[in-house]
Formats: sequence, C-alpha cells, structure tokens
Amino acid sequence: MKIVITGGAGFIGRRLALKLLEKNDLDFGRGQGAPDKVIAFDVGEPDPPFPDDPRLEMVTGDVSDPDQLRALITPDTDAIFHLAAVVSAGAEADFDLGMRVNLGGTRAVVDVCRELGTNPRLVFASSVAVFGGLVPDVIRDDTHLTPQTSYGSQKAAGELLINDYSRKGFLDGRALRLPTVVVRPGKPNKAASTFASSIIREPLQGQAVDCPVAPDQPMWLLSPRRVVDAFIRAAELPAEAWGPSRAVSIPGITHTVQEMVDALTRIAGKNVSDRINWKPDPAIQAIVSGWPMLFAAERGKALGFEADESMEEIIQAFIEDELGGTFVR
Amino acid sequence: MKIVITGGAGFIGRRLALKLLEKNDLDFGRGQGAPDKVIAFDVGEPDPPFPDDPRLEMVTGDVSDPDQLRALITPDTDAIFHLAAVVSAGAEADFDLGMRVNLGGTRAVVDVCRELGTNPRLVFASSVAVFGGLVPDVIRDDTHLTPQTSYGSQKAAGELLINDYSRKGFLDGRALRLPTVVVRPGKPNKAASTFASSIIREPLQGQAVDCPVAPDQPMWLLSPRRVVDAFIRAAELPAEAWGPSRAVSIPGITHTVQEMVDALTRIAGKNVSDRINWKPDPAIQAIVSGWPMLFAAERGKALGFEADESMEEIIQAFIEDELGGTFVR
Repeated sequence: MKIVITGGAGFIGRRLALKLLEKNDLDFGRGQGAPDKVIAFDVGEPDPPFPDDPRLEMVTGDVSDPDQLRALITPDTDAIFHLAAVVSAGAEADFDLGMRVNLGGTRAVVDVCRELGTNPRLVFASSVAVFGGLVPDVIRDDTHLTPQTSYGSQKAAGELLINDYSRKGFLDGRALRLPTVVVRPGKPNKAASTFASSIIREPLQGQAVDCPVAPDQPMWLLSPRRVVDAFIRAAELPAEAWGPSRAVSIPGITHTVQEMVDALTRIAGKNVSDRINWKPDPAIQAIVSGWPMLFAAERGKALGFEADESMEEIIQAFIEDELGGTFVR
Repeated sequence: MKIVITGGAGFIGRRLALKLLEKNDLDFGRGQGAPDKVIAFDVGEPDPPFPDDPRLEMVTGDVSDPDQLRALITPDTDAIFHLAAVVSAGAEADFDLGMRVNLGGTRAVVDVCRELGTNPRLVFASSVAVFGGLVPDVIRDDTHLTPQTSYGSQKAAGELLINDYSRKGFLDGRALRLPTVVVRPGKPNKAASTFASSIIREPLQGQAVDCPVAPDQPMWLLSPRRVVDAFIRAAELPAEAWGPSRAVSIPGITHTVQEMVDALTRIAGKNVSDRINWKPDPAIQAIVSGWPMLFAAERGKALGFEADESMEEIIQAFIEDELGGTFVR
C-alpha cells in the first residue's frame, strides 16, 4: 500500500504520515493492510526531522510541477493526501505564489491522478475560508461559497475540480473544510488565527502572550489529533458514501476565546491563564470577526467525522503530544 | 473607446459587436462615447461575415494563449466581453479541450487584464449550468453552486476568479448566469437545449421538427436581444452597484414547452405549430429535467436587467431579426 502526502513536512502532514505508519488495517478500497510506503512531499524538510522508518520517504520539490508529481504519484499509489498550500495570509500577500501553488498545484495533482487511469483516492485539504461575506449565522452544507480571500477562492476552485474529476471517474476525491486547528506547536505565524494556538501554548510554557481579539469572539475549532483522524476517515469512506458532492465541512466545536481561556484555567490553574494579556488589535479583530464560526456540519456528522468533546480535551491532547505531559505552573 | 469580445464570431458575440457599434453613449467608467475599435476574437471567422466597418476588426486565434490575448487586450482597452467557451456537450465529450478553453482561457483573460494595471471592465458569460444536483425548487442568488457538468464546473471556477480578481482590484469583473437563449438562428447543434430554438425556428420556415421533451417541461428563457442588452448593461453598471459578489443570475421567463408552442400558434397559426412532432427522447428528457428552471433573480432585477415580456415577444423578435419579418404560413 502506497500513500503520497503533499505538504507532508508541515505540522499536519507530518502527524498524518506518522499516524498512517502506525496503522495495519487501512482500507482505501483495494483491500486492507499496512502502508508499504508513505512519501512525504514538500518544499522543505520537516522540523523536527522524521524518525527513521524504511517505509517513509521525504521528497522535496514543487507541487505545481506535474513532472515532479508524476515521479511520486504512480499507478500503485492507493491514496493521495493533498495538503500542500500557501496559507491565507501568504496567498493574500503574494498573489502569484498563491495561484501557482493553491490553484496550479491542485490542478497538477488532479491531472496527474487522472493520467494514472486508476481512479485513486484523493483527499484535499479545503478550508472554511471558502465561506465569507454575506452568509447565514449558521453555515450549512448547502451554504453558497463566497470566499473573501484569494486563499478561499483557490480552495473553492479546488473543490470544483475535485467534484468534477470525481464525477468523471478520473479520481475518487474528497474535500474537507477544516476548522481552525488548535493547538498548533511551535512559534506564532502570520495567520490571523495564530492567537488561538498562542493563548494556550505560550502560557503552558511559562510565557506571557497577548490576545488580540475580544473575549466574546467565537472560534470554530478542531484539534490536530481529530484533523488527522478526519483525513484518514475521509480516505477510507467508500465512494458511495459521498454521492455527487465530495466536499464536507468537518465538525468542530465553537467556543468563545473566554471559554478557551476558562478551560485553560480549569486544567492548568489561574496562574497559567493569567499569562494572557488582553491587548485588542482592531486589524486582527476585524479579520476574525468576518469568519463564520457556527456550522451545522450535519453531513460531516452523518459521515462519521468527530469533533473534540471539549476544549479541555484539546488542551490535554496538546500537553500530551507536544509538551511531554507537563507544563509550567 | 476600445472593446474586445472573445467568442466574437459566435451568434451572441457577433450581435454584441454590431450592437456596440450602433452606440454613441457607452460608458465603461472612463467617460461616455462611441467605440473607436471593436475587436472580435474567435477560433474562426463569423458566418455570415461581419459587415464592413472600419472600427470592427476580426482576429482569429486561441483564447487560452496569453501572448495572443496580450496583442488584443492592451492598456487602452475599456471593456472586455469574455464569451469564448466550449459549450456544455463539447466540454463533456472532450474534457481536455473544455479545461483548456473554459478554465485555461478564462484564467488567461483575467491574467492578461491584470497585467495591464488599468482595472478594466470585464464581463464574463457564465451559465445556469453552475447550478445542478440538489438545489431548491427556486434558485436564489445565494443558492450554492453544485455543477453537474464539466462546463458548469469550469464556469463556476471562472466566477471565483472574476470575484477574487475584482476584489484585488486587478479588473472590474461581472459574471452573468444566462438562461437558455431562444430563438437561435441556424442549424440545431448538439446541446441538449437545442430543441428550444428548433421548435420555433423550423416551423416558421416551413419545416417539420421533432420535440424530444414533454409539453409540461419548463424552460428558463431569454431572447438574443435581451442577452446582448444584458452584456452591455453589465459592463456599464458602476463597480459600486455590484458589491462583493460579481456574479448574478440574469432574469428570464419560465415557460413550459407547451406554453412556447401556444405562443407560436397565437403568432403564426396552428398550421405552423402543427409542424412540431412530439417525439419523446428519454436521454434528452433526462438531461433537461435536471436543469433548474425557476429563478428568483432578485439581484438581477434590482440591478436593472430585464427579461422578455412574453414568449410572443421572443418569437416576434426572431421573425424580425432573423427571418426578415416573414415566415412560412
């Protein structure tokens, strides 16, 4: 069983690769088994490096280059996880790069899959950024896509390709609209949502952190563990389960920032959550306020995708997975 | 004032070019005037040929080739009408051609517009084919796009590009979702909708015609005159009128096939409409039954787009415009 992950050196891609290697009962429609080969493809090497595993191969390159993809995505490939993307703020700042990677890269991946003639399973990381502008208070599975960023537009166009290529039998695609993933490890990045991880991660490591949005701001959240589970589930569901629409909003939980902080207090104590300083940043508040934060996600629930039970579960998982089970009281 | 029309040799493109040349009060946001130059760009020459007009230039070429577009769409271009497309049945039969022309061509057009740095007006011919599958009985402006054909998927992706390029200020785009255009002149083509024109056109010229769908099948209709008016109106409306969404369903009228035939009887007599033979074709009926046929089109009406008053008006316009005012009784 061979699996290719684009964006495989990223935080989620890396965890997905390692999780797949733990499995011995994967089923992508060609029989159950363990992966013989997992190829992680990305622009650079992962940090930290992958553990040694003869089944795991790291390849660096450009996802928008069909020739490079053809060397990886071969007829014996059972499943492709297409996670490679220039993130929201990056695609907004460098339009050409976003178009090349997010639209051109997706088109290259689906075209190379089509060339195989094997109808391979393809899971595409879409985003709730496909929604925006004038949307109802609660996003439903049939809410129209009106992205307000280049990133969201490119992801929405990718969904159209996934649907049409699947309808034509060129590939067996699935597109997951992911909530904001918390708690990410490492350093803050330039995403407007980065605070949602920072306000948990930094205080648990003894560091002060500024929260740029109001306590009553709701967020639509999913843990890294659940995201990885969702990718694997999406690849394993049979084609019949999807029907004509291959895109789905993955269930998350909606919590206000205050509720996130309250959960941190319950787990780690007031001393930890007092390391958060409320420093409103009108620019970030304006961006975050425009995001849809309530999703019915009925289809995702019906397809068996699972949200985290609670913010506490999300924080506990972060402490276990990334902090070695301890934190700075 | 310079105007470029891709698909300019097609039936609608040709009429649009000639209509634009009649105008002396066009306003695409850079002052009122008459066109100095209208370039019709297409894969082949128009049939019949264009009348002699020193302001009208016919150029043949490939809309997916940015270099060819750069020679036409220059900084002094005030408006571009992007009509070039491989039609529905064609894009379904030749997937690569549809992707190259309908998605690649649109991307080439918007990228060349962007290179200008002049934020030109761009009107894009979208289609009701962006809708399909599980849609409500009445399509609203916020109904989600779930195209069930490659053509519809490519048009929907084009709308995403038009919206995002407009938001970024690269061009000032407008995308029109057009109803089925009746009555088209000439011969039947391979479109499943071709009967909607044939059942009017052929009987008026003394010829028998088969109608492949049931009399109670509704159709969403617009005349060629109104389509041309809609393109010009779309280009003249100021950017402020559009807001964040640049796509709009153009108002049409919904009539059953029987109502279309009844209108033909009222105008031309029973002798003419008796030339229609009801010959159900289950394959065509199945395709047509899947099309959305009722549209609220509230936004289109608010923006001043106008449907035909009646089926009689559509038929009378066809007799005047294409049959020299007469028909075979």
